[in-house]
This record gives sequence, structure tokens and C-alpha cells, in this order.
Amino acid sequence: MSIPSEMKALLLVGDGYTRTPSGSALEAMEPYLEPGSIAVPAPGPTQVLIKVSLASINPSDVAFIKGQYGQPRVKGRPAGFEGVGVVVAGGDDEPYPKSLVGKRVAFATGLSNWGSWADYAIAEAAACISLLDTVRDEDGAAMIVNPLTAIAMFDIVSREGERAFILTAGASQLCKLIIGLASEEGFRPIVTVRRDEQIALLKEIGAAHVLNEKSPDFETSLREVIKAEQPRIFLDAVTGPLASAIFNAMPKRSRWIIYGRLDPEATIIREPGQLIFQHKHIEGFWLSEWMRQHKDRRGPAILEAQKRFSEGRWTTDVTAVVPLAEAMARVPAELARPNGKVFIRP
Amino acid sequence: MSIPSEMKALLLVGDGYTRTPSGSALEAMEPYLEPGSIAVPAPGPTQVLIKVSLASINPSDVAFIKGQYGQPRVKGRPAGFEGVGVVVAGGDDEPYPKSLVGKRVAFATGLSNWGSWADYAIAEAAACISLLDTVRDEDGAAMIVNPLTAIAMFDIVSREGERAFILTAGASQLCKLIIGLASEEGFRPIVTVRRDEQIALLKEIGAAHVLNEKSPDFETSLREVIKAEQPRIFLDAVTGPLASAIFNAMPKRSRWIIYGRLDPEATIIREPGQLIFQHKHIEGFWLSEWMRQHKDRRGPAILEAQKRFSEGRWTTDVTAVVPLAEAMARVPAELARPNGKVFIRP
Repeated sequence: MSIPSEMKALLLVGDGYTRTPSGSALEAMEPYLEPGSIAVPAPGPTQVLIKVSLASINPSDVAFIKGQYGQPRVKGRPAGFEGVGVVVAGGDDEPYPKSLVGKRVAFATGLSNWGSWADYAIAEAAACISLLDTVRDEDGAAMIVNPLTAIAMFDIVSREGERAFILTAGASQLCKLIIGLASEEGFRPIVTVRRDEQIALLKEIGAAHVLNEKSPDFETSLREVIKAEQPRIFLDAVTGPLASAIFNAMPKRSRWIIYGRLDPEATIIREPGQLIFQHKHIEGFWLSEWMRQHKDRRGPAILEAQKRFSEGRWTTDVTAVVPLAEAMARVPAELARPNGKVFIRP
Repeated sequence: MSIPSEMKALLLVGDGYTRTPSGSALEAMEPYLEPGSIAVPAPGPTQVLIKVSLASINPSDVAFIKGQYGQPRVKGRPAGFEGVGVVVAGGDDEPYPKSLVGKRVAFATGLSNWGSWADYAIAEAAACISLLDTVRDEDGAAMIVNPLTAIAMFDIVSREGERAFILTAGASQLCKLIIGLASEEGFRPIVTVRRDEQIALLKEIGAAHVLNEKSPDFETSLREVIKAEQPRIFLDAVTGPLASAIFNAMPKRSRWIIYGRLDPEATIIREPGQLIFQHKHIEGFWLSEWMRQHKDRRGPAILEAQKRFSEGRWTTDVTAVVPLAEAMARVPAELARPNGKVFIRP
């Protein structure tokens, strides 16, 4: 396979971290990315070069390009943490990187600083998963970040012991994966959404309760459900007033675990006394940290994810596949649509 | 000693918990207490009846009478968690409760619902400490709640490993105890106060840095001190905007431990992303919970406290001793004065 010297990519405009954090919605691409041409990189000894077929857009990508993810931006390098593609070159470590050449892989770019929103990307060979032919590109491109996050978060829920737990942004791809996993094991997800039409869909895949946060009786319903189910874990992608209200209504020893910031409004601890007398905690979840702490669980989790996608127990809902050349213009509007995932096709 | 059938006391007006939590300042007595006469109670089998010499007023008492402490109010019963007095009767468990009769003790009323702001109080015999003659009444009346809290909180600091830590409301009696303990062990307390005249005093007893939160360059000084000292533990009695700013400026893996709510303003998590990517936590501290979890440490901690007061390494600064009959009128104004403790004398 001949490799060109130049490639097209979406390049980071900012460097390092932002000084002015905002919400996790992507209002426009221009402040953060510019389209450009750049030399195709060479893989390091433990790395592979991948011709990207399809790249996914995760909430972590949006946080990263805005400079509010846990890893600094390198100005002028391509963005994109995840994708699917064919390995075209490998580093000199024997035999692993070179043995992947020609294989179709799901990959995560991690700390390589050569992201997937480009014709070619760099990943550690160890961060690539050879795919079965039965796995669709759309599932392969979204096989690492969300599925591992789902498995890691459900792990937290299942260790806590209570059957019920709460999820905000319940119609996200990530939450759908968690709901599926949890209901299979007899757990009872309580999820919040913003649209009535999402209620039936989420109940069908296993949500025990689906509450529309825009409904006038939301707080009343929330209190009734919490009283009946006694959830102790709250996996929160939203923050702001919604999350404050949920945490406030939860019982003793509840844990508010923040992993996203969809609502840029102020996040208030309504009653700090609950932290004192009810032993409530507020903490965060970051997949990179979980993987550092649970190295042994990464391999089995990836196998589990591929199995679920192959068998159709998990599936990736596609909102749009946007050609790389149209990404600057179209991505923000596509991301704002509910219910599915947006991909970039180089 | 003859025991009358009736006694004077400050009685709880409210029952259970409040539905409208407020700050921890005491704006007035009337909404929460009324003076009255009530039958002198009889001690249960494991309890003693104490003729109160001096009762202390702790922040936990204020939270309790307002219905925002971790224990429900019983309407019509006397308030007051702590005091010093002479045991006049004991329950039938042999030999312990009766063996205390005639002794001067420091006591905590705990869950007895017969508080110390009264002529007589009920305490578990196990929650009484026989006092050496060398211990002043003012120290004896404040020997349990604050000293045990100080020892428990310093325990958290010393287990964390970092030498520097942060305290708000640094001129409180509790913080002075913590500062003394910590500086003896080579730790570096960083404390905030609201008055310049408190700075020299707190440095003298061992504070490494004292910052006036009202100073125009407070946030700049705070950031410089945090950068130099890298504190990871934040023991917070204040909440609100001050605490939010401090937590926001602290480094990775910091723990914001809330134990009071002096500022009733909204407590905002300024950057929830710090919980995700910097592993910061927000939690609470409650002495009752610490004692449940560390039963074995209560005895040694009490001995340590009595030793420190006897030797003068700890001392209780007295703002005022208010006669029980004047308490309704005078206590709020006395509590609002800085730097010392307010007592009620039956």
C-alpha cells in the first residue's frame, strides 16, 4: 500500500488548556479547529500508522478540542481520539506492530497527538483491536471509548450493591450501553431525558424509569422514584441545576459521580449539610484514570465489547456520517441532534 | 445531695428536622428555643444525672436547634450537647454509673435528649470524663466536642501525607486546637480569617500562613500560597464563595471536607471538570460518624485532650459566660463576637 507524504486533517487551533472553561456542547468548530494539510507521520517503535475509514466524535473529543480535557492540546496536530481503519505501517518492535499491517482495527489514539480526524492516524499497537468481519465500521469506530466507559461505570454501580442507580443524558450512546448492560444483570437504571419520544425507546432497552427533565412534575416524580428505589450512585453527564436537584433528593451515602458537563450553568451543592450528616460524596469519573487503576480489566472489557457488538446486543445508532471536507460546516448541527452518534469519514 | 423535682432549661421549639436549611450563624434564639420549667429527668440504667455547672455552645448546637444537625430534635426537651458538672445520680448498671456520683465530670449528652442548657442534664456514663482538679470549668465544659473533632480532623490530615493543609474560619476555637496540634508535629496550616488582628495570634500558635479573606489581594495570595505549599486537604467550616474559590485553586487529588456552613450563600462547584480530570473530591466530616468508625480511638483522644488542657498546651478562650436566665436575650450577640467561646451558666 503506497502512503502519500501529505494528508488532510482537522487541526487543533489552541495549545494546552483553556483558561475559560465552558459547557461541553460544541457551539462551532472554528474557535477550536481548522482544516489543513500536514505531513503523514511515521509510527514510533511501539506504534502503527492507520489509514482511517471512519472516525467517531465523542464528548471527550469536544472537551479536548476546547482545552478542557485531562490532556493538553498540541497546536497544529489532528484531533480525534477514536476510529476504525486499516493498518498500513508498524514500528520496529517485534513482532507486534508490524504484524497488524493489513488488518482492519478499532483504535484509540491516546497520547499519540496524531488523532483520527485525518486521512491517517497514529495509535499504540496495544490500543488497536483486530476486528471480526461481522463488526460494522460504525460499531468498530465506536468500540473503545464508550464501551469501556460503560463497562467501567457499570462496574462502579455493581460494586455499590444497590440495584437502582441514576443516569442523566439517558439517551446518549453511552447511557444506552450502560442501560443494556445493567438491565441484563437485573439492575434498575433510572434515567433522565429531555424529550418524551425517548421514553419508550429507553424503557424497551431496559431502563426501569425514564423521567423527562422538562416535564412540569419532574421534581415530584423524581422524589417518588428515588423514595421507591433508593439509588445510591448517580452517573452524571450534565451537572448544573438538574444534577443539583437529583443529588439533593438522593438518600444517605449517595455518590454523585460527574463525568460530563453538558449544562454550563452553575453547579450548586444545594445542602452542604447532606455531605456532613448523610455522608454524601461528590467525585468524578475519567476513563483514563480508571484504566490506569484497573489495567487487568481493559483486555476482558474490550473482548466483551466486541462480542456484544457482533451479537447485536449492543449497536451504535448513527445520526450522521460527515465527509472530512464538510466537517467544519456540518458537525456542530449534527452533534446537536438527539439519539445517535456522529462520525467523520476521511 | 437533694434533687428538686423541677428545673429551668432552654427548651426546643421545633421537632425533627427543618425543611428550610439556613446558614450556621444564630440570628436569634426565639425561633428555636424557649425558656421553661420541666421535670428533672431520671437517668436510665447506663446513664447519670448531672448538676450542670457550665454548658458550652458549639456550632453543632446551633445546627441542632435549627433542625439541621444529623440528629432530630425532640420538641420540649432541653438543648445543649456538652458541659461540665457534678454527677448527682446514676443508673443501676453496676458499678459504673453510680460510681461517678459526687465526681466533677466533662460530659456529652449525645442522643439522651436531655441537654446541658438546663439545671440538670443526662449523659451516658461512658460519655463522662472525670476531671482532674487542675482542669478549669471552662476547659472541662469544652473538652469533648471540639478537642475530639480537632484530633479526628488532624488524623485525616496526617494520613494524607502532605504537610500543608487549609482551614477556613481559622480563628475558631476548633481551628486553634487543630493549628496547635498540627504545628507541634511539623505540619503547616494555611488558615483564612476575616480580621487582620487575628493574623499575628494565629501565627504565634503555629499557622504557617494566615490570609484575610476580606483583603483585596486575597485570591492572589491564596494562589501563591497554594502553589508553594501544595495542600491537598481543605477542612471547611464556611462553604459559599470563599470555599469554592479555595477548592478551585487547590492542586490535583485535593479533598474538600465540609464540616460547617457559616456562609449561607450558594456553594458552587466552579469547575466540575476538576473532579473528572484532577480526581478532586468533595465530602463531609461529622464527629459522630468518625467515632462510630474509630471506636478504639475515642479513649486515647480524650486522655490526650485532658492532658493538653492540664498542661496548658491547649486553652479555651472565653468570650462570655451568660447566666441561663439571660441566655435568650444575650447569646446571639455574644456568639457573633470573634475569637472565643460562649458558655451558659445554669
